[in-house]
Amino acid sequence: MAASALSPIRIDDPADPRIAGFVSIKERDLTGRQGRFIAEGTVVLRMLAAAHHAGRGLAAEAILLLESRVAGVEAIVREFPAEVPVYVAAAPVFDAIAGFNMHRGVLALGRRDGVSGRDALIASLPASSLVLAACGISNHDNMGSLFRNAAAFGVDAVLMDETSCDPMYRKAIRVSVGSVLTVPFAREGSAASLIERLQHEGFAIWGLSPAGETDIGGIPPAARTALLVGTEGEGLPPAILESVRTARIRQRPGLDSLNVSMAAGIALHQVALINDRI
Amino acid sequence: MAASALSPIRIDDPADPRIAGFVSIKERDLTGRQGRFIAEGTVVLRMLAAAHHAGRGLAAEAILLLESRVAGVEAIVREFPAEVPVYVAAAPVFDAIAGFNMHRGVLALGRRDGVSGRDALIASLPASSLVLAACGISNHDNMGSLFRNAAAFGVDAVLMDETSCDPMYRKAIRVSVGSVLTVPFAREGSAASLIERLQHEGFAIWGLSPAGETDIGGIPPAARTALLVGTEGEGLPPAILESVRTARIRQRPGLDSLNVSMAAGIALHQVALINDRI
Repeated sequence: MAASALSPIRIDDPADPRIAGFVSIKERDLTGRQGRFIAEGTVVLRMLAAAHHAGRGLAAEAILLLESRVAGVEAIVREFPAEVPVYVAAAPVFDAIAGFNMHRGVLALGRRDGVSGRDALIASLPASSLVLAACGISNHDNMGSLFRNAAAFGVDAVLMDETSCDPMYRKAIRVSVGSVLTVPFAREGSAASLIERLQHEGFAIWGLSPAGETDIGGIPPAARTALLVGTEGEGLPPAILESVRTARIRQRPGLDSLNVSMAAGIALHQVALINDRI
Repeated sequence: MAASALSPIRIDDPADPRIAGFVSIKERDLTGRQGRFIAEGTVVLRMLAAAHHAGRGLAAEAILLLESRVAGVEAIVREFPAEVPVYVAAAPVFDAIAGFNMHRGVLALGRRDGVSGRDALIASLPASSLVLAACGISNHDNMGSLFRNAAAFGVDAVLMDETSCDPMYRKAIRVSVGSVLTVPFAREGSAASLIERLQHEGFAIWGLSPAGETDIGGIPPAARTALLVGTEGEGLPPAILESVRTARIRQRPGLDSLNVSMAAGIALHQVALINDRI
């Protein structure tokens, strides 16, 4: 029997200490989890398995499946090392554990630690690199979408200032379709220090702004390019825009600027084409 | 005094029949509202005022403001005709009416009726036109985002098949930043009949698909172009893709395709550039 061949551990009590890491994940998302994160859904689970083996500081600690989903994800679950416990629960118990019903019956608890700091990550980038830099991103949907774009267009690293929200939040991981687990990133320091570091490492930095000087199609090819995007609503602050070159996405006048992740997607696509990265 | 100069009508009872249209708007969103819709927030309110005067079948029926927001939106509220009643409520009453707290204290009840059907809308398009066609869009965030892109890149009309969700839902309007109120649209009939109609009217139709034949940058300029996008997840069905030319967005291999609104935004930007529309 396919399901029993996995030998998952059956959980009948939502208070079972073995699945404590999955309890009330929606609320706990808001309070931080000491390097722990929740991966939801089949696609993200597959990417977590790959990330676990890639050994870049991401590891799975446990998997929790809805009974009816076991057979469907068995092949993916087998990609994890045998020491990662697999728990299974019937729907009422599963919902009582997770505390909400957006999990699609497939959850994993992961840990991210021992990853490179920002400057070490920048120093490790190849001679030909594309970086997405972001400051003040406060919305987890946008954060997830930025990572999905970064993965699609071959970004080598996403670098965020310390005021940006945490990409390891459950919803950001989900919206990124797991790209948060595959694209190297760092979130530390000020936007000014990040820009200084990138400039020092030879990056041409282009700040994206409706008031930018150059159309995104006119950004010249460069061995190292960093696209810089700012806060939802306000965009990049004037002091930042003065310290970098600026680019804009042409659009009809008189409208709100595009959403930050949409703008980043359009610009990354263009810069990736210009630099023959896709 | 600025606020009293508006002479809003004070509501102290959430059950007051005058504000019945605003009651429990979150739940009622799901059940249809007979041509009524809810506009939320300052920006959308401003666009509703403009739409009201443009006379394309959109009208405001009432405005409901949180007491503390009256002064801040007074100038916008004055753009509406005097016969549109303006109600004001203190926070507890306001929340009891709306039933949730995502409204930012600025709500308007609108009506959409007497608008052109699909074929009349197509027939009214200028000789040089850009259309966004969509089938099977089921998510209101994506729908709103499609309209925001359409507005940004100068789309003349958004045409959806009957299986797509209603752009007049509160959340779609909000995500579109009001563009649903300004970009003409129709949602009726099958995708096949929509394609047939557009072909008959001389549109070059480009179906967007990861398996598309032409890079979006290679779509030739044309007096009339329609970009066609499909369902989240599945994309455009094979039978549809066989009936149109197809275009793709280059991206790194081995990943999930881009979100439909992101893909549409990137492609519309490109097609708008190619056709000198932005």
